[in-house]
Formats: sequence, structure tokens, C-alpha cells
Amino acid sequence: MPHKLIRMHRVREDQAPVRQPIMIGIAGDSAAGKTTLTKGLAEALGPDRVTTICVDDYHRYDRVERRSKPFTALHPDCNYVEIIEQHLQLLASGQPILKPVYDHSTGELTRPMLVRPKEFVIVEGLLPLHTRLMRACFDITAYLDPPEDIRRQWKVRRDTSRRGYTADQVLAELVDREPESAAFIRPQRAFADIVVRFAPVAGRDDPPGTPLSAELMLRPTIRHPDLSGSLAERDQRAIHLRLCRDEDGQPVDVLHIHGYVPREESRIVEKVLWAQLGVDAGFPPETLGDIGNGERSEPLAITQLLLLYHLLAARGIRDAAG
Amino acid sequence: MPHKLIRMHRVREDQAPVRQPIMIGIAGDSAAGKTTLTKGLAEALGPDRVTTICVDDYHRYDRVERRSKPFTALHPDCNYVEIIEQHLQLLASGQPILKPVYDHSTGELTRPMLVRPKEFVIVEGLLPLHTRLMRACFDITAYLDPPEDIRRQWKVRRDTSRRGYTADQVLAELVDREPESAAFIRPQRAFADIVVRFAPVAGRDDPPGTPLSAELMLRPTIRHPDLSGSLAERDQRAIHLRLCRDEDGQPVDVLHIHGYVPREESRIVEKVLWAQLGVDAGFPPETLGDIGNGERSEPLAITQLLLLYHLLAARGIRDAAG
Repeated sequence: MPHKLIRMHRVREDQAPVRQPIMIGIAGDSAAGKTTLTKGLAEALGPDRVTTICVDDYHRYDRVERRSKPFTALHPDCNYVEIIEQHLQLLASGQPILKPVYDHSTGELTRPMLVRPKEFVIVEGLLPLHTRLMRACFDITAYLDPPEDIRRQWKVRRDTSRRGYTADQVLAELVDREPESAAFIRPQRAFADIVVRFAPVAGRDDPPGTPLSAELMLRPTIRHPDLSGSLAERDQRAIHLRLCRDEDGQPVDVLHIHGYVPREESRIVEKVLWAQLGVDAGFPPETLGDIGNGERSEPLAITQLLLLYHLLAARGIRDAAG
Repeated sequence: MPHKLIRMHRVREDQAPVRQPIMIGIAGDSAAGKTTLTKGLAEALGPDRVTTICVDDYHRYDRVERRSKPFTALHPDCNYVEIIEQHLQLLASGQPILKPVYDHSTGELTRPMLVRPKEFVIVEGLLPLHTRLMRACFDITAYLDPPEDIRRQWKVRRDTSRRGYTADQVLAELVDREPESAAFIRPQRAFADIVVRFAPVAGRDDPPGTPLSAELMLRPTIRHPDLSGSLAERDQRAIHLRLCRDEDGQPVDVLHIHGYVPREESRIVEKVLWAQLGVDAGFPPETLGDIGNGERSEPLAITQLLLLYHLLAARGIRDAAG
């Protein structure tokens, strides 16, 4: 048998080498804000440079079939976990995949589509950080961790407006899903280089319409830009950094980005931050921070900026730019 | 970057090793008899030991989309060739695939299905031997090469009865497909270890209903059983072996299996052949030779027997049995 594998290997060696993409995995529960975060990143990098996939497309059962199953769509048994692992490995080594497609509007599984990895691959969904092999495929990992009451609002709004559910159905589904969320989704938080939490600032009584603030927990599992100097130097309210301990006692930095600050002030911080990161003159793009319906959030823009920094730094643009 | 590939590799190494299947590729034009041949092989080995896939499921366009394309389903551009290569490599190394599905009855592409390679994998279709990398994945390759008039009859019968076409549509399609058949399907014949041709014996005037004879061209690209001795020894009409030159002048053996011989006589030959191959006592199974509608063909049974021999020999059963 080994001779056959050697033969396959030799034929592959004759082919042109492929460039390996930089990959980011963005995990989080349903309606945690993954799509909004991802969309801004993808627009900033541009469609020629980025491939986005959602691992929720790897559902093993459609919506009707799931009704007779003892688990929800959050359960690994409801997803082709080994195929997610396989496809992430293929993408990480620069190979195309024939990706399954789950239609969220109808709940049906439809024909698969060819996906070719570009320079950057963004992988978002419920379970992208579920196994060791999945995690090994990423250069950067992030977890979206909004407070449950915020996520509930977001989920009701989205699923009633775009997925054909009633509010009661959505709330019942949240109850159904809670044990699996605790068992399979939330444990992924521990494997993220960056944990993102959008929430109102505790203790403040901001008027309605004030954008949520962001709290970015930066684990020293990847090399974050040294923000301590530049943020300490400037006397500004929009953004500050605090050394903390995570739930497990490990040291982390927490970057607070306040939503109540006027846009102009945040934008100055964004520009200073970006310039200090030393990546490229073209940023920050105006498309960052878009939360839909023409509204924007500077804390989201700054979060996206930091993730872009990591993507570009991993790609080596930072080195090339000196 | 390389550190990520090493990390992926190390995680994979922790997993249990998988057994690599024996793989046979069976190529041939539309309605050349691939499914009939394959079905008997799969039944003889049993569903617990064999996985069958059809590479025609890898059509890039559905039937409606193909109408506006400048090529037919036979053209490599109409198929996900690189995904066929990828999936064959995955199967050959014992990995599962999420296989696309083309519904021949409706002409639609539907939800993909998980396929896990068992001990033997049979891959049939229009283009399984099209590229070097595909061919490198097989232990045994076969090509079905019926005379065009026979294939036309088979195609009209099948496509009018099971795929919803009229006879005129099928005949028009054959004309449309001829240039691509010549360019992409027939060249695969050159890469087959065994070329199978079912046809009436030239110069005979057999009554209607006489089963077709088979002519098996055996290329010395794999180690065929030495049939010259046992077939020469026996004075029988059903089966004989002739040393010939192929179209390209290379030496080949051609095994003739005549369809006009009474079943009892062929069965004796099958048993002698099987015993001489020294593989296993349980064969030959009665299911071999089934051509549908309760009819059977001994030449088909003998063809299947020879392919089974190669599959089992490659698996090492032959060695184990001494």
C-alpha cells in the first residue's frame, strides 16, 4: 500500500506550490455578532484577498430532521465535525474545498459550492474552535462573548426578521439550547487569543441609542501590539488597557473601548492606534464599525482594527513595510 | 507559516491510524455498463466491505445550467476535477469525504452525503482516470469499451426508461457528446489495467437473446493471474486467452469469454478459474453476472470474477491464505 501513497505524493510534487492563507477562527453562540464582525473585516481586506466561510454550513441534518433528534444544531453530533477538521486543514494548506451549504432562511441543506482559499480565510460559526485539530488550523482565534441578555435581544431581532421565527419560538429555542451552549459553545472561549464582549458600561446610565462598549480580552497566546505605552500617554476616555486575571487566574490584558464617546474622538484614537501598529497607510477604512441599518459603532471598528492588525502582521506585510 | 502545518501534523499523529482501502477505478462512456459491472462486484464483496462512489456526482452545473454552456457533462470543465482528485486522495488514505450528489432522475445537484471508505472502494464514472493524480489513487483500473452501436442501444433503453428522455433526445445527445467523448472519455482506455468489451462474436449468427461475449484486454501494468496454463490444458469453448498487440503496439493478453456457451459449461470454467486463483473457498458467488430483469451473463460473471481476484489479491487475502 505505501507505494500508492508515494505515487500520489510524487504526482502532487509536480504541481505548482500553493500559497498558504492566514486563517482566523471566530467562534460564538448564535447571534453573538459573528457575521457583523466578520463582514467589516472582509470588506476592509477586500473580496480579492479574503475568503469567508461559516462552519454552520456543516450541519448534518436539516431543520425538519433535527426535530426528531435528541439534540440541537449546537451539538457536535449535529455537525460533520470531522469534515470541518478536514476542510480547515485543506484550506490551511492552500487547497480548495467543496463546501456544504445550509440555507438559514429555509433550514434546508442545498448543493455544495467550491471555495478556494485566498490570502486570508475567515472562519466563523458555532464550533470552529471545538477540536484541537480545528484550532491547529488557525493563526488567530477569537470568541464573541456578549452578556446573555444582549445576545437574547439580538437573536430575537434577527430570527424574527430574517429567519421566519416568532419571538416565542426564538425564546423557547434559547432555553432548549442552553445545556448544549454551556457544554460545547462556551468552552471555546478558553481557546481564543482574543475574547470580545460588547456590553453597556456597568454603572452608567447612558441614553438609549448609545453604542455598546467593547471589552477585548487579549491573551498572551499571540503577540499583541504593545498598546500600554501609547494608551497610557494619551489622556483620553475612549480606550484604555488594564492588566487583569482571567477566570482561570491567568494574566491577560483587557482593552476597554467605550461606546459613549463621540465619534470624532474615537476616530483619532483609531488613527493613532493604526499608525502606531505601523502596518500600512491605507487604513483605517471607513467601512469598519458598520452595524447595519446605516448605524455604526466605534468600539466595533476598533475591535476590527485590532483583528486586521493581526491578520496583516501574520501575512508579513508588517515585516515587508519595515 | 510552516509551524502551523507542523502543529496540524502533530495533532493528527495523536489520532488512531486508519486502514487504507483497496481502490478500483472503472471508467467508460455514458451507458457503457459501469453500473451493472460495479453492482455485481459490490454485492459479491458485501455492503460491510465495500464503498461505491460515482464521479459523475461531481458535476459543476445542473442539467438546466448545462444548457447554456458550450460543453456537455463529459467535459472536464463541467466537473469539479480538482475536487475529484482531492476526494480520491482522501479515500485512498482512509479519510471520509463529504461527497456531492447529482440526481440523475431530476438533473439537480442536491445535498452532499458523508462517505467513509471501507475495505474496498469502487469508483466508477465518466472521468475517474482523467488525470495522473486520479490514476495514482487506484490499485486497479478498468475501462469499459463496448462497440458504439451496442452502447447506443443501452443508452436509449436506460435514458428513456429511467431518466425521462425521449429516444430522439438521447440520440441527439450522443451526437452532441461525440467530440468530447473522443477528447476526454476514450483516452482513458490507455490507462486501464483491464479493458472490457462486451460485444457479439464477429462472424457468428447467434439467435436473438444470446448473451454478448466479453473480450478482456489484460495489460501487464498489474500482475494478472497466469491463466495461460489452465486455459490451454482444458478443451473448452467458453474461454480462451490470446497474446496480441494493443492499438499502440504494446503486448497484451486478450481473454475471450463467449456468450453463446450454455451456462453449465461457463460455471465449470468459473469454478476452475476461481480455484486456480487460490483466493477463498466462498466464491464464486451466485450474484455475479446479473444484468438486471432476472437475466444473467456468464461473460459478465467471469469479468467480475477477475476483478474480484485483483481486489482480494491486493488486499492481501491471497497471501494470508498461503
